[in-house]
Amino acid sequence: MPESLFEGWRARVDAALSSALPDPATPPSRLHAAMRHAVLLGGKRMRPLLVHASGHLSGAEAGTLDAPAMAVELVHAYSLVHDDLPCMDDDALRRGQPTVHVAFDDATAVLAGDALQALAFEVLAHAPVDAATRVELLRTLASASGVSGMCGGQALDLDATGNGHVISLEALKRLHAMKTGALIRAAVRMGALCGHADVATLETLDRFARALGLAFQVRDDILDIEGDSRTLGKTAGKDEAQAKATFPALIGMAASRCLLSDLAATMDDALSPFGEAGAPLAALGRLAIERDR
Amino acid sequence: MPESLFEGWRARVDAALSSALPDPATPPSRLHAAMRHAVLLGGKRMRPLLVHASGHLSGAEAGTLDAPAMAVELVHAYSLVHDDLPCMDDDALRRGQPTVHVAFDDATAVLAGDALQALAFEVLAHAPVDAATRVELLRTLASASGVSGMCGGQALDLDATGNGHVISLEALKRLHAMKTGALIRAAVRMGALCGHADVATLETLDRFARALGLAFQVRDDILDIEGDSRTLGKTAGKDEAQAKATFPALIGMAASRCLLSDLAATMDDALSPFGEAGAPLAALGRLAIERDR
Repeated sequence: MPESLFEGWRARVDAALSSALPDPATPPSRLHAAMRHAVLLGGKRMRPLLVHASGHLSGAEAGTLDAPAMAVELVHAYSLVHDDLPCMDDDALRRGQPTVHVAFDDATAVLAGDALQALAFEVLAHAPVDAATRVELLRTLASASGVSGMCGGQALDLDATGNGHVISLEALKRLHAMKTGALIRAAVRMGALCGHADVATLETLDRFARALGLAFQVRDDILDIEGDSRTLGKTAGKDEAQAKATFPALIGMAASRCLLSDLAATMDDALSPFGEAGAPLAALGRLAIERDR
Repeated sequence: MPESLFEGWRARVDAALSSALPDPATPPSRLHAAMRHAVLLGGKRMRPLLVHASGHLSGAEAGTLDAPAMAVELVHAYSLVHDDLPCMDDDALRRGQPTVHVAFDDATAVLAGDALQALAFEVLAHAPVDAATRVELLRTLASASGVSGMCGGQALDLDATGNGHVISLEALKRLHAMKTGALIRAAVRMGALCGHADVATLETLDRFARALGLAFQVRDDILDIEGDSRTLGKTAGKDEAQAKATFPALIGMAASRCLLSDLAATMDDALSPFGEAGAPLAALGRLAIERDR
């Protein structure tokens, strides 16, 4: 069941994104085209699917989930555009396509990222939910995106990369809880907010989302070693080349796989009270752990 | 009267910004220090003053204006950090200080800008006003910052720079209405929203703000030619060196000054219904036209 559900949600998100993104036929065309390149060409849509799956669990109407689903993907996409810049990770391949600064230029990539972030908040400010929920959605996304979330984690990652300084397992977990975890938690929380979930449900779902965020990153680190660039759609083997702190580098491949199993158990446990309603979220958890790209 | 009022508002905004910005003593320290560098070292605080002056005219409580005043300055500051990057305007001096990528590094400058934008929306999502007003503030800022505002204008400016292609006066006005005008209009609108101004007042104030935004840019272009870097706190003469489309380059210095006078008359006319309550906004209008930095 979940995979056909996911296909429907993906199609819905892609259609919504395509109509929210500006038309490349109107100026500034280059900026508009770069924004569409960054968002519409590929991508697993993991975060939008989490919004929909969490909304499904919480009884949210599907029509209220499009805005947060788009917003979280727009923030994710902008972060990839900026992370790929020559002054950051300097990557030429993403989602199986040339990165934005390669397909366009560095200045356009900086601006496209900036405009995508603004669009995320603009889309969310128009979500068809009551004003109080809308404010809570905006708070959730802003706080997950900034210094205490994604940007802060990215800065910790820059600090930990290639300077020979050894990072502890706890510090690496904290880094990823911010860098990738915060946005994944925000996705799950926003879906539940649209269903007016109570505080206890929000907390239980957050336990699931924390485990999922970490599992996602551990799997990412494993794939960077074991995967190949063609399947991944991005350059494999970059972590080691850049002397990045990763889970396999720090605790070894076997312990990384054990960590993944522990996280899978935590996810199952967190979702058990929800029965069938939690099936799509559970399937996304398994997907994060078993994916090969 | 206005100047002492402005001093009080500036002090208020600076104190609020300093406490909203993350502590450089906690990691990631480099990111936090770069964000503070970008915002707290200098700056005229024109946009926050517009929020306060417009709120003053509309009878808003001062306590409701701190959040929008901070938010608009955070967006402005992030845009300067990114505009100064080597791949954009490549500038080393800003607000009399080394630019962020010079004082820190390019990657930190990209991230600091990103985090400042997120912080702007986070601060605004916590504004102490009713949820409906908060949503309207967030919509106003998001739409002014993105493709239909500041980022779009910056992209048009990139397209018009140094490629020998001649831009019309109308196109140059449109470019600046987006690049600098949108955020100035948002500042004026947000102050009035906090005072629950009616639609007619919002429209009249918008007429003032449109004229102010254009006047601000025309004065900027004149100062780039006539000013010196020390007073400006940024590199003078860059427009000509980069073959930028500017008002003096397009219509000459005398016509640029006439345009400024016309805009001053439009501003006075727009504010005339408000009497004394409009004095601070009127003074900011004069300041934009007469400033030497």
